Amino acid sequence: MTVDERLRELGIELPAPMAPGGTYRPAARAGDLLFVSGQGPVLPDGGLVTGKVGPGGLDLDTARGAARLTGLQVLAVLRAELGDLDRVGQVVKTLGMVNTAPGFTATPAVVDGCSDLFVEVLGEAGRGARSAVGVAALPFDIAVEVEAVVLVR
Amino acid sequence: MTVDERLRELGIELPAPMAPGGTYRPAARAGDLLFVSGQGPVLPDGGLVTGKVGPGGLDLDTARGAARLTGLQVLAVLRAELGDLDRVGQVVKTLGMVNTAPGFTATPAVVDGCSDLFVEVLGEAGRGARSAVGVAALPFDIAVEVEAVVLVR
Amino acid sequence: MTVDERLRELGIELPAPMAPGGTYRPAARAGDLLFVSGQGPVLPDGGLVTGKVGPGGLDLDTARGAARLTGLQVLAVLRAELGDLDRVGQVVKTLGMVNTAPGFTATPAVVDGCSDLFVEVLGEAGRGARSAVGVAALPFDIAVEVEAVVLVR
Repeated sequence: MTVDERLRELGIELPAPMAPGGTYRPAARAGDLLFVSGQGPVLPDGGLVTGKVGPGGLDLDTARGAARLTGLQVLAVLRAELGDLDRVGQVVKTLGMVNTAPGFTATPAVVDGCSDLFVEVLGEAGRGARSAVGVAALPFDIAVEVEAVVLVR
Repeated sequence: MTVDERLRELGIELPAPMAPGGTYRPAARAGDLLFVSGQGPVLPDGGLVTGKVGPGGLDLDTARGAARLTGLQVLAVLRAELGDLDRVGQVVKTLGMVNTAPGFTATPAVVDGCSDLFVEVLGEAGRGARSAVGVAALPFDIAVEVEAVVLVR
Repeated sequence: MTVDERLRELGIELPAPMAPGGTYRPAARAGDLLFVSGQGPVLPDGGLVTGKVGPGGLDLDTARGAARLTGLQVLAVLRAELGDLDRVGQVVKTLGMVNTAPGFTATPAVVDGCSDLFVEVLGEAGRGARSAVGVAALPFDIAVEVEAVVLVR
């Protein structure tokens, strides 16, 4: 089964990749490695999921949903760069950054929203090394940002 | 002298690597590069060193000790992945993230607890590029997290 | 035109690279990839641009200028490592970290101070993948830190 077939089976339609909001590329290649710029949670209507995650802000389920939306953007960038998601040999490394409110530390459970999507869509090739941490601020106050390094085949 | 011999000479016994707390691998390989997931400070009894570093929280020595424990976890993952620490050609890059209290900026001195360990154990192969920064939150409120990219030989 | 000729044309004189403030190298090589340690904004007199960016702290223009100074340090490290900036095939990935005050989220506009410099000096080889986020603390309270991965030719 190709990845496109699996996406159809899962009922997932990839969004258009968001244009870079600054002086950078969506992704850059070095040999077999493709480095994907930090992506954010874009809603189907083009809006962004914004705000702090934790006490007084977004709850865990909402944040995990935002991480899943962020993962869709990463996949959209990969497809645009590679033409075909079957060329993803391995998601090597992701860095998930959560816009945390004071007291919130369940950052791995949030970023699993993205990582679970990668495994659903790409199988074990979607499970890579990862860090999932809380940061003080993200662009446009988005709730989650994920960057990735991918091995291309 | 092998790295295992040096570890014995230093009286260092590597811990068991901690199992991933989410949808990711402890490390992933891309050609000669091995990307190690963010690791934390695991105490000999299996507990974690938690809390903010700085005013009102952990002091510098405790935080540096936590970074050293984190380094032991990184080495444990490397040995589990490679079978043998002599296969580490170079620690290429580490990102050290400190769970900082407001006003604390001595993040390099904290992360040196990890980097000094790498050099003790691996010699100059343990001295790579690095960033050492303060983040808003870490998983399970751990005091320090370190991820690494290693060149395998 | 060589990169050194372009630097002269732009009236840019690269500073001396700052010595590492801890147990790490300014940069480390893995095959064709060069990983540059996190650099900060060093003023011509050797001082550092410090402080939080945003409400009650540095304004956007000052922060963008700090990011440009940080970019000069990255270029200085690259020249010291490679001998010659013409050997930079591509800036593959940068991570820009801004020392944000609460409420400040325009981190991409800040880090553009560095990325715009890379494109001025290196052309499209200076435009890579990027993340630009706000962190809780940076070493010595510097306003901006940038690390980079570069493809060498």
